[in-house]
Amino acid sequence: MNDRRWNYNTGGIPDELFLRGKVPMTKAEVRCVTLTKARLNDSHLIWDIGAGTGSISIEAALASLKGKVYAVEKEAEAVSLIRKNSELFGAGNVAVIQGMAPEALSGLPAPDRVFIGGSGGNLREIMKPVFEKLSRGGRVVINAVVLETFMEAVEIMQEYGFTGVDITQVSVAKAVDLGRVHMFKSHNPVFIISGEKP
Amino acid sequence: MNDRRWNYNTGGIPDELFLRGKVPMTKAEVRCVTLTKARLNDSHLIWDIGAGTGSISIEAALASLKGKVYAVEKEAEAVSLIRKNSELFGAGNVAVIQGMAPEALSGLPAPDRVFIGGSGGNLREIMKPVFEKLSRGGRVVINAVVLETFMEAVEIMQEYGFTGVDITQVSVAKAVDLGRVHMFKSHNPVFIISGEKP
Amino acid sequence: MNDRRWNYNTGGIPDELFLRGKVPMTKAEVRCVTLTKARLNDSHLIWDIGAGTGSISIEAALASLKGKVYAVEKEAEAVSLIRKNSELFGAGNVAVIQGMAPEALSGLPAPDRVFIGGSGGNLREIMKPVFEKLSRGGRVVINAVVLETFMEAVEIMQEYGFTGVDITQVSVAKAVDLGRVHMFKSHNPVFIISGEKP
Amino acid sequence: MNDRRWNYNTGGIPDELFLRGKVPMTKAEVRCVTLTKARLNDSHLIWDIGAGTGSISIEAALASLKGKVYAVEKEAEAVSLIRKNSELFGAGNVAVIQGMAPEALSGLPAPDRVFIGGSGGNLREIMKPVFEKLSRGGRVVINAVVLETFMEAVEIMQEYGFTGVDITQVSVAKAVDLGRVHMFKSHNPVFIISGEKP
Repeated sequence: MNDRRWNYNTGGIPDELFLRGKVPMTKAEVRCVTLTKARLNDSHLIWDIGAGTGSISIEAALASLKGKVYAVEKEAEAVSLIRKNSELFGAGNVAVIQGMAPEALSGLPAPDRVFIGGSGGNLREIMKPVFEKLSRGGRVVINAVVLETFMEAVEIMQEYGFTGVDITQVSVAKAVDLGRVHMFKSHNPVFIISGEKP
Repeated sequence: MNDRRWNYNTGGIPDELFLRGKVPMTKAEVRCVTLTKARLNDSHLIWDIGAGTGSISIEAALASLKGKVYAVEKEAEAVSLIRKNSELFGAGNVAVIQGMAPEALSGLPAPDRVFIGGSGGNLREIMKPVFEKLSRGGRVVINAVVLETFMEAVEIMQEYGFTGVDITQVSVAKAVDLGRVHMFKSHNPVFIISGEKP
Repeated sequence: MNDRRWNYNTGGIPDELFLRGKVPMTKAEVRCVTLTKARLNDSHLIWDIGAGTGSISIEAALASLKGKVYAVEKEAEAVSLIRKNSELFGAGNVAVIQGMAPEALSGLPAPDRVFIGGSGGNLREIMKPVFEKLSRGGRVVINAVVLETFMEAVEIMQEYGFTGVDITQVSVAKAVDLGRVHMFKSHNPVFIISGEKP
Repeated sequence: MNDRRWNYNTGGIPDELFLRGKVPMTKAEVRCVTLTKARLNDSHLIWDIGAGTGSISIEAALASLKGKVYAVEKEAEAVSLIRKNSELFGAGNVAVIQGMAPEALSGLPAPDRVFIGGSGGNLREIMKPVFEKLSRGGRVVINAVVLETFMEAVEIMQEYGFTGVDITQVSVAKAVDLGRVHMFKSHNPVFIISGEKP
């Protein structure tokens, strides 16, 4: 044991362990499913586009300790959170790139795995450099909470000829402790679209 | 890389990689959430009660490589599947115990983590030795697909004074490729109840 | 056509047509399922316990035009809303009873149908007079958003020997128009437990 | 009371009351939500395209007793079921049209309400005559269980300029009585897309 915030080999780190501010965060249950769709090994080079609080970047970094995660995020507040969270969790292999995709991707080394959590409506533009640079057998995992992103992700996966395309909707409800009773509360559903570059 | 069936650090191994026969199996997405609720480290001693095909045992074993998993299962067909699957995935740290809980638990070393996936309606009887032997700070994760098991799990967690009790329902729908189109199909919802021994 | 707020034979009146204040309301989709579980005819005598904004009372009243609905509600603000909503929708056959169940039920005529939307943790006490007064073949429909209410409802239905017990969880997600895009948002899941008095 | 199979004003007729054969049927809970999205009055002229067992046609006919429902269905087995079910439920105002949309729609009188439950991948072709003939203020309700139909429905609603477009996903899970215990089983999720012709 050391002084890091998470000392387990399993992911799905509880949400409240991350610094969040007002930045939206992929919740623990969806995050762990998202990570598994990427199939990470020890030394993957990973892009996390629209990294938000960095929760996915950090879990990816912890699952790929000799690898490297490039967390791309345009908002200054979020960039600052990713840096702080990376430190708290001892994820020294996360590099934060402030900027907007696709522009911000141009200087990055070619990835083995790409998470797209926020596309700002530019998914089609983003996918072009992602697909070009992605290694053969590399995987892309898109989380969509927006209908238009979901639809575009499905179309793009087909257009580019990704194989083994998986389209999974995860809906989580929790019985939240209100003291005297527990109330069922839903998280918003997330569509997770993933596939492999042939 | 070696010749094992799964060479990634992330879990949620695709269902079709396991030998299954007619034994029910926790599907990949729910399985990965279940694993994260257990919070496994390198050297945990783990019980998996009602292990079925062994999919949770094996993922736990791969996440806790210096640890040990005792997979308890009463059905002969399932016991055979667990053995075969453990071999396919190179999970040498899975020990299969054929028998029915709670009886089958009596000779096992004290656990740090306990999964209960199948209780055969004996959850209350099973929880007694589980709680007694569980290490302090140890965690129990119960997967319930049966209403009565769900209700009993919630009650028992309170009765025994587990802390940090988490009650999560995971509902997964997939757009299944039918050739010309994809059809949305639901997996049955699973309630995952977890908590820590104070 | 007249000047009422809803001129259709189908229920599931859009939420925004009701006056709501800060009183919780059963959303349109769950409300319509709840109504169908009650199986209303023209002349049913109906209790709606924990009536909230009165949305279920009003839809029941419109489906049972020669019948009568007793809307039981303890909160003054909600009582006032039920009165106003009843007027807006031309539901002259809704009588509002301010008070708390089970006490407030004592003077009411025997029901054919009973909705229980809010029990304030008194479901067991409420069910006693409900079952006693309920006509043979009468139906009870309980909406539970609280875990403990859900569990108690299931148990009570069995204890009292209700027949044709139906336990349905309805989860609704909507793609909400945010202007440029639509975002998937979940309503909290509702358990609807219904059964018939033999 | 008479000798019809359903004597209630509320819909959501239990599935088992319909003759079904092997024809797919919209389940009761989704059916009742679908009906409410159409907002039926006493005298609507209704098309039900891809009527299957006729369960939606019949519920629409019972909600619009002076109206008329044209149930369009290509499969001979289903056509026969619609006829039998209409008779069982005393829905004399259902006319069955054997044929495939859009061709089969050409001779039909202009509708006030249109349900599209099965499009056979021809949604775009079907929507053309539907929109042209639909009365102003008329409503279209599309049930999609297929991803491509869902996406096309969303796009078409925008292209044609439907107003008040509502995109609702309904997920139903039931605790099914297995004798000794109840098991949670999911129905497949259904997307219900509805809107009004300006």
